[in-house]
Amino acid sequence: MTALNNQAKAGEEITILSVDAMGGDLGPDAVVAGLERAAFKNPHLGFILHGEIDQLKPLVARRTQLAARCDIRDAKRVVSMTDKPSQVMRQGKGTSMWSALESVRDGEATGCISCGNTGALMALSMIRLRKLPGVNRPAIAVLWPSRSPQGFNVMLDVGADIRADAEDLLQYAVMGAAYARNGLDVAKPRVGLLNVGTEEHKGRPELHQANALITEGAKFGTYKYHGFVEGGDIPKNLVDVIITDGFTGNIALKTGEGTASLIGDLLKEAFKFSFFSKIASLLAMSSLLRLGKRIDPRYVNGGVFLGLNGTVVKSHGSADATGIAAAVKLAFQLSQADFNNELATQLASTASEAQDTPNTQAEMINTGMDR
Amino acid sequence: MTALNNQAKAGEEITILSVDAMGGDLGPDAVVAGLERAAFKNPHLGFILHGEIDQLKPLVARRTQLAARCDIRDAKRVVSMTDKPSQVMRQGKGTSMWSALESVRDGEATGCISCGNTGALMALSMIRLRKLPGVNRPAIAVLWPSRSPQGFNVMLDVGADIRADAEDLLQYAVMGAAYARNGLDVAKPRVGLLNVGTEEHKGRPELHQANALITEGAKFGTYKYHGFVEGGDIPKNLVDVIITDGFTGNIALKTGEGTASLIGDLLKEAFKFSFFSKIASLLAMSSLLRLGKRIDPRYVNGGVFLGLNGTVVKSHGSADATGIAAAVKLAFQLSQADFNNELATQLASTASEAQDTPNTQAEMINTGMDR
Repeated sequence: MTALNNQAKAGEEITILSVDAMGGDLGPDAVVAGLERAAFKNPHLGFILHGEIDQLKPLVARRTQLAARCDIRDAKRVVSMTDKPSQVMRQGKGTSMWSALESVRDGEATGCISCGNTGALMALSMIRLRKLPGVNRPAIAVLWPSRSPQGFNVMLDVGADIRADAEDLLQYAVMGAAYARNGLDVAKPRVGLLNVGTEEHKGRPELHQANALITEGAKFGTYKYHGFVEGGDIPKNLVDVIITDGFTGNIALKTGEGTASLIGDLLKEAFKFSFFSKIASLLAMSSLLRLGKRIDPRYVNGGVFLGLNGTVVKSHGSADATGIAAAVKLAFQLSQADFNNELATQLASTASEAQDTPNTQAEMINTGMDR
Repeated sequence: MTALNNQAKAGEEITILSVDAMGGDLGPDAVVAGLERAAFKNPHLGFILHGEIDQLKPLVARRTQLAARCDIRDAKRVVSMTDKPSQVMRQGKGTSMWSALESVRDGEATGCISCGNTGALMALSMIRLRKLPGVNRPAIAVLWPSRSPQGFNVMLDVGADIRADAEDLLQYAVMGAAYARNGLDVAKPRVGLLNVGTEEHKGRPELHQANALITEGAKFGTYKYHGFVEGGDIPKNLVDVIITDGFTGNIALKTGEGTASLIGDLLKEAFKFSFFSKIASLLAMSSLLRLGKRIDPRYVNGGVFLGLNGTVVKSHGSADATGIAAAVKLAFQLSQADFNNELATQLASTASEAQDTPNTQAEMINTGMDR
């Protein structure tokens, strides 16, 4: 990355992110537009862009500020949204996704961003970057708009693996807390375990086991354990990190998004209803835009894969330039904080005796979500 | 119920509902106020009210329209929100909840309404009313505000039992469809099975099994099977009935409610922000109230217990008069439609070979939600 580093002024450090230009719903155009926006806001960023070079070259060239800070790597093949993760693991070489991960694996870049197929990205990340020592199941974490002072809570796993046993949930607590500390500046994150009630006898046996393990793990001081929380507590100022298995987390995440989108639609209709309400919507515009920015998924775009040797940010498949820029900002923040080194140390100290179970890989590739 | 029936004019049929006056967060005052509202709107209703007679008598007496159509049955004990279902099953006799169910069991009333402890109400309903023939796990169904023409979708199970195997999910499909037909007037309801993706290979093994069973069951013509749906599809005009296990359903329900409540709070703040937005909120008031009515949980109050010999409607613990009146309306509707007889016939015809498993009762009482 000498070309990129040469662009930075003497004494300034520049963070290089590796970006998969293909595989998103809106194509490489939206990705490049997002990078330009991020580059404009942050002079300490450089990019390695992976995809079909004939398509990418003109897109980058006409954005002068970006062009000087962006290397392009040719990758002819694209992972599609319908490709099965197992298939991509066997035949993924030569795709833009694979190539983007290689830049992190080789140490050229500190983080990778893709808006492609989630299941495939997780599967490739597992085999190319490998899991952090002691991690059994990596997880996908998202930021959830909340009443907490930092404006967001962290929730994981939202879809890396449909299963999670008690040991996995303990690791999610440690990983989620590290993310809240580094990504949201919460000194000692409050952790809650998602369940159907807050009393100790509620829920499945593995949750009771996890409850005991996470209580025990809190003595290492990296998080404060609140106990069980319910679905209604996710957006509250009660905990900063909500942990659950990937099946439940994925359904909760999509249910929350679906509810927000229904209310948004109904609100638009309500404002169209009468002459007065049309005037009202004009007057209220700036307030509504501010609210929109607070809960718009594009501004909190980016699920982070936790538990791997390297930062991987999965952007929404339908992310536009705003969404891509948000994902880049997140990857930059976590690279700055040297997040993964901190995580590895903490996982090791949380007395994790979890050994890789032989069937983990097989379960993972049957899971995935396609957002 | 001769006293009640005498009140009705000759030739008019009156539907008697049994109501647990105690156990809600707002006390019997809110319950009685709700009954008055329901009685005012619907001349074909009569009530048997269960609870501490000295408390209830003056509350009912000062509402003349209600007093003539309401019998009071003394029950000194109250099931509290913190009582464990297992304990209530053993020692629940003499509580207002037990007494309210007895009126349905004895045929005095066609349905029961309570805003008390959900787990306890389900446990008592199981032992006093018993399950419909062939039903393994009864379920709790709620109405979810949606884009479907009828304005709501049905979702079950939202918390009767944390587990559901493939056979149970098939029964939920049949029961949910019957509810949509009788409660929402949907001639042939579209049914979807909640999962983390819509492709056939996604999710847990029991979901693949259920997918096959429900596809097969659709040939009886009581519902149309759509296949897997995701969390974001719950409020869409895609299916009318969403089925899932009680763990996932409970978390989805509370997550949806929590999201709606966060947006409501933020909206109120947004409108307070500036002078213009304050004027705007005044102008938009009627539109916003209309929207509020559409998604306010009080208006869609009432989870229905499906799979029992008798209609049981569980109202929100925090239900006010509006909420209670909505629950009464729902119980009335389902009594009119002779819902339970239809359900029993359909369950029998859906070739259900499911036998009661010996551990069902034990699982049930460890579950419950406390809404």
